[in-house]
Amino acid sequence: MTGSVASTSTPPPRLALVPGEPAGVGPELCVRAAQRTWDADLVAFGDRGTLAAAAERLGLPLRLVAADAPEARPGELRLVEIPNAVDCAPGVPDPRNAAAVTAALARAADACLEGGCDGIVTGPVHKATINLGGIPYSGTTELLAARAGREVVMMLANDIVRVALATTHLPLREVADAITPDALERVLRILHAALCDDFGIAAPRIAVLGLNPHAGEAGHLGREEIEVIEPLLARLRGEGMRLDGPLPADTAFLPAKLREIDAVLAMYHDQGLPVLKYSGFERAVNLTLGLPWPRVAVDHGTALDLAGSGRADPSSLFAAIETCARLARRGRKAAA
Amino acid sequence: MTGSVASTSTPPPRLALVPGEPAGVGPELCVRAAQRTWDADLVAFGDRGTLAAAAERLGLPLRLVAADAPEARPGELRLVEIPNAVDCAPGVPDPRNAAAVTAALARAADACLEGGCDGIVTGPVHKATINLGGIPYSGTTELLAARAGREVVMMLANDIVRVALATTHLPLREVADAITPDALERVLRILHAALCDDFGIAAPRIAVLGLNPHAGEAGHLGREEIEVIEPLLARLRGEGMRLDGPLPADTAFLPAKLREIDAVLAMYHDQGLPVLKYSGFERAVNLTLGLPWPRVAVDHGTALDLAGSGRADPSSLFAAIETCARLARRGRKAAA
Repeated sequence: MTGSVASTSTPPPRLALVPGEPAGVGPELCVRAAQRTWDADLVAFGDRGTLAAAAERLGLPLRLVAADAPEARPGELRLVEIPNAVDCAPGVPDPRNAAAVTAALARAADACLEGGCDGIVTGPVHKATINLGGIPYSGTTELLAARAGREVVMMLANDIVRVALATTHLPLREVADAITPDALERVLRILHAALCDDFGIAAPRIAVLGLNPHAGEAGHLGREEIEVIEPLLARLRGEGMRLDGPLPADTAFLPAKLREIDAVLAMYHDQGLPVLKYSGFERAVNLTLGLPWPRVAVDHGTALDLAGSGRADPSSLFAAIETCARLARRGRKAAA
Repeated sequence: MTGSVASTSTPPPRLALVPGEPAGVGPELCVRAAQRTWDADLVAFGDRGTLAAAAERLGLPLRLVAADAPEARPGELRLVEIPNAVDCAPGVPDPRNAAAVTAALARAADACLEGGCDGIVTGPVHKATINLGGIPYSGTTELLAARAGREVVMMLANDIVRVALATTHLPLREVADAITPDALERVLRILHAALCDDFGIAAPRIAVLGLNPHAGEAGHLGREEIEVIEPLLARLRGEGMRLDGPLPADTAFLPAKLREIDAVLAMYHDQGLPVLKYSGFERAVNLTLGLPWPRVAVDHGTALDLAGSGRADPSSLFAAIETCARLARRGRKAAA
């Protein structure tokens, strides 16, 4: 395992591209992605008519070709067809399409598990609509983790910082009890392994935030740092992991500090993500660590108000494709 | 009340300048401030020997003059002398000086209450040392609030964003229960009044964050937004306040959004301050809203490791003096 750039003489990785909510901006962003060449072969998993309609609205060419087509030029896109139940207008999600949306994710995961694809790139999904459609769904990350039978860690990244989360979509009042030694150890091991294996960082340095303001200020503002976080970090340092902290969250993100570390582990969602999004929202991506293959998602929602207008910025999807292609190449090299 | 710049033909405001922990960087930053001219008359409240020694270490001139001296040129500083109990070396706080440190803050507050000063600028204090000295102390903000008999709100500000906090130095597991309708209403009224009266913003627009990730996502990730925050905001909007939210914290700080609002109200410390410090730590200041006079503090700690080296950056203290002078001028004008 090295940090060097993989050779491009090997065949490009095949990436499953899942547009997500058909009434959101996902389909049109995928059409824009199909106009370019990538260091990967893209295979869309979704509804033919939705993609074709998005292309027509954008005034862009789109020829949907067979999933196993050996070549796809700009303006062409491989497709594994997963038909929607009903047509839907941009901006108006229809719960009757919920099963098709989750089926596309599941089929893409299966393609990775069976070796047909080397990674998954996902567009934004509309959680409420899926639940309205009668399908229990708490998030794409959770769906993929269940499909692969793995524990995973959510990490957001842009050009400035990588932020992994010890807890994700949890009411704030449940966060403190969720930070147990076992849970935190599993998260740190998944994060550390991903930085080593997927990102090729030989000895990653991770900044671990405290749970409380000022990282508890020696117990004056909470004792979880003393009782849970510090003992765990000490033990993992004994195994050779390079772990800073527990650090006060407000000063851990100072630019000079970010340059010294490879990732920040935040204890919860709103402790870690505001800086990530402030510092570079457009190019931010959402990674799922711990799966047997890379999964990278856009770092934005369905943007129903923008859907169909042609004004949605494809930067995050493009960054997700580039990141996933890089990780997939590295993964295949490591497995070889 | 207008947003216009106050005339400088009125006499400059008198600002109490409290160095804070004598073994920290506060004294040397005050010496640096004394080398400049300001749109204010500075009056130090502290120990003579500590300031003199700091000047000598920096190789800078410092003549300490009477508190009521009509004029102080660069290199001169008015002083209300509050002697330390013992001398202390840079970097080595002595709990025996705790009483002098808190007395300086109390005397400066009294000078404002009695009309002798128009505002307070404070350097960093070492909380643990004061408590070791046997003085119950939870923070300078709390000390000043008690002295003035007022409820206050803590707000951090730089050139990019103002962030006020609904709760401050509280263990994370206590935050959710502390967000009550009454407490939040008091905070919003103090913040709104300060933006109008102290900052001269005619109809301030405040972005109020949710408590939970995604602002609770319609109740799926917590119900405090629905049960506490939204009803309060609706009621205050009925009084004419311009309040956005409750907003998801991760996207509330996107630069384009910050340009549209005058302040962010975060529900807790680590939700609001990482972006503030990331976006401009050096020029950030800490304001106490709700006092009868402006109080502005540096946004950094005692930096014991830097104390005495001469390398401490005075930008935050300088920004605090400028901000306090501006607020004091506006306050006197409003009272006239």
